[in-house]
Amino acid sequence: MDSNSLYIGVDIGGTNLRVALVDDNGKVIKKLKRPSAEDILSELESAIDEIVTEGVKGIGLGIAGVINRNTYKIERSPNLHQVEGKDFIGSISKKFSVPVRIDNDANVAALGERWVGAGRRFKNFVLLTLGTGIGGGVVYGGKLLKVAAELGHITVEAEGSNCLCGNKGCLESYTSGRAIVSQVVESLEKGVDSILKECCEGNIYKITPEDVYNYALEGDTLAREALKTAGRYLGIGIASLVNIFSPEAVIIGGGLIGAWNILVEEGIKEARKRAFPELIMDVEILPAELGDNAGVVGAAYMIKQELEGL
Amino acid sequence: MDSNSLYIGVDIGGTNLRVALVDDNGKVIKKLKRPSAEDILSELESAIDEIVTEGVKGIGLGIAGVINRNTYKIERSPNLHQVEGKDFIGSISKKFSVPVRIDNDANVAALGERWVGAGRRFKNFVLLTLGTGIGGGVVYGGKLLKVAAELGHITVEAEGSNCLCGNKGCLESYTSGRAIVSQVVESLEKGVDSILKECCEGNIYKITPEDVYNYALEGDTLAREALKTAGRYLGIGIASLVNIFSPEAVIIGGGLIGAWNILVEEGIKEARKRAFPELIMDVEILPAELGDNAGVVGAAYMIKQELEGL
Repeated sequence: MDSNSLYIGVDIGGTNLRVALVDDNGKVIKKLKRPSAEDILSELESAIDEIVTEGVKGIGLGIAGVINRNTYKIERSPNLHQVEGKDFIGSISKKFSVPVRIDNDANVAALGERWVGAGRRFKNFVLLTLGTGIGGGVVYGGKLLKVAAELGHITVEAEGSNCLCGNKGCLESYTSGRAIVSQVVESLEKGVDSILKECCEGNIYKITPEDVYNYALEGDTLAREALKTAGRYLGIGIASLVNIFSPEAVIIGGGLIGAWNILVEEGIKEARKRAFPELIMDVEILPAELGDNAGVVGAAYMIKQELEGL
Repeated sequence: MDSNSLYIGVDIGGTNLRVALVDDNGKVIKKLKRPSAEDILSELESAIDEIVTEGVKGIGLGIAGVINRNTYKIERSPNLHQVEGKDFIGSISKKFSVPVRIDNDANVAALGERWVGAGRRFKNFVLLTLGTGIGGGVVYGGKLLKVAAELGHITVEAEGSNCLCGNKGCLESYTSGRAIVSQVVESLEKGVDSILKECCEGNIYKITPEDVYNYALEGDTLAREALKTAGRYLGIGIASLVNIFSPEAVIIGGGLIGAWNILVEEGIKEARKRAFPELIMDVEILPAELGDNAGVVGAAYMIKQELEGL
């Protein structure tokens, strides 16, 4: 079946703005990616301008932050302050005269995976994106659950490390790029022996999660332990989410899935030990498929679903 | 508006079987309550027999345990082994020739509160029932979210106390009647000074959560601390649930709400410190209203919604 409907999907995450033209089958026809400017709204408008074409039925926006379910403004975005308080829907729908919808970036990424990614086969799944922080989205009955789904901010240690969100012991303070690097740097500062101290020309403050993974592959104990600790907490989080949502699948995306064989494997083992056995038994735990496109494709699907009354 | 539709709601919790005739407005017309027998299916059939009348359109069952979303059999019920593996829907629909639906008892209790209880005003809320254990249910867009919602089994202490479910550090191992009593008994065994040791004619193994509350009201430090600790963990759990579900309300039911002014108040304080401020700001945290009737009324509403295609 061929169709002429086109959609624009926007994904504004921590550091990048992505705008794509997406067809009715979830295919990305054209995509722009640029660093998020300070004047994010003007930048977004000009990016959409470059990509908009005849046949565009609507625009979907996925933006990092907590979105008010009544006003649709972004109430807080710790990694992207310039979006806070902005009326994206008002501005964009006025300028482009098509329907516009907004949701959190990780939420729409879940929707993208549902449409044409790792979630295709599942009507009920949980998506966790492991990057600098943790994002989450929940698909229920084939549709996005319109809730905050701040899945990185469930407490896994009552009196644990301080989290950027203001709470203590959040999953994100243990399982995220930031957490892994902190753990490694703290250990190196304490003088723990590790070849990681030679990383980055000896400047341990430049270590990235990818460095940790590479050193782990070379057998460095500190690096391996850091990834396994993150993985163990990931498993604790997955177990809680399985006990809550009884999903068919847990899909894991974000940069950290590069460390799947150490970090995520540890998490899967831990989750299977902890969740209700009859709930986790048939749960598939698998990597996201859309990578950098998950957000734009999902944002496009959000507006498509809305317009088609799906 | 008057209507002749009637429904039967069944609630089989840990120790009791409740069967009620419920009218179209959520009013309980007649109700039976008896201890759960070993042959639970025969007992249920005879109880329904006593209460069934002309005009009954369907039967809703709320049963403690993990329900398989495909077969609708109860896969596991730690406090009610006799329901495990039973085909309630098959047996009951055959005997009474009306549609029958089944869900977890805490899930249907949430639905009852939604219909005619503390959840009337809210389309999105989380229910926690604090009893011997913890039950949970989530209402989303006015309807029950059909997920396990085992909200007592989210991990709040990664390496915490062993939970009956097999996991460690579950919310239920800190905030439940069983947990409060354990904490008090352990302290008394260690020789902590408290007037609670005079409770129950000196047999500390007979202490109930209600005793703990009564001694707390008399100013006993151990009793107060036990309730406050349970409350603090309750708050940690509520914060995680608010960050996940961004509900309008959190409704708290079950026997422990008798200790609202100590236990739940502490929980509310803790939750407001921990959850995303913009998410918890407008969340109402309030007691359930239907008490012992929540399950039967909710089970009746479940079948009513189903038949009316709501």
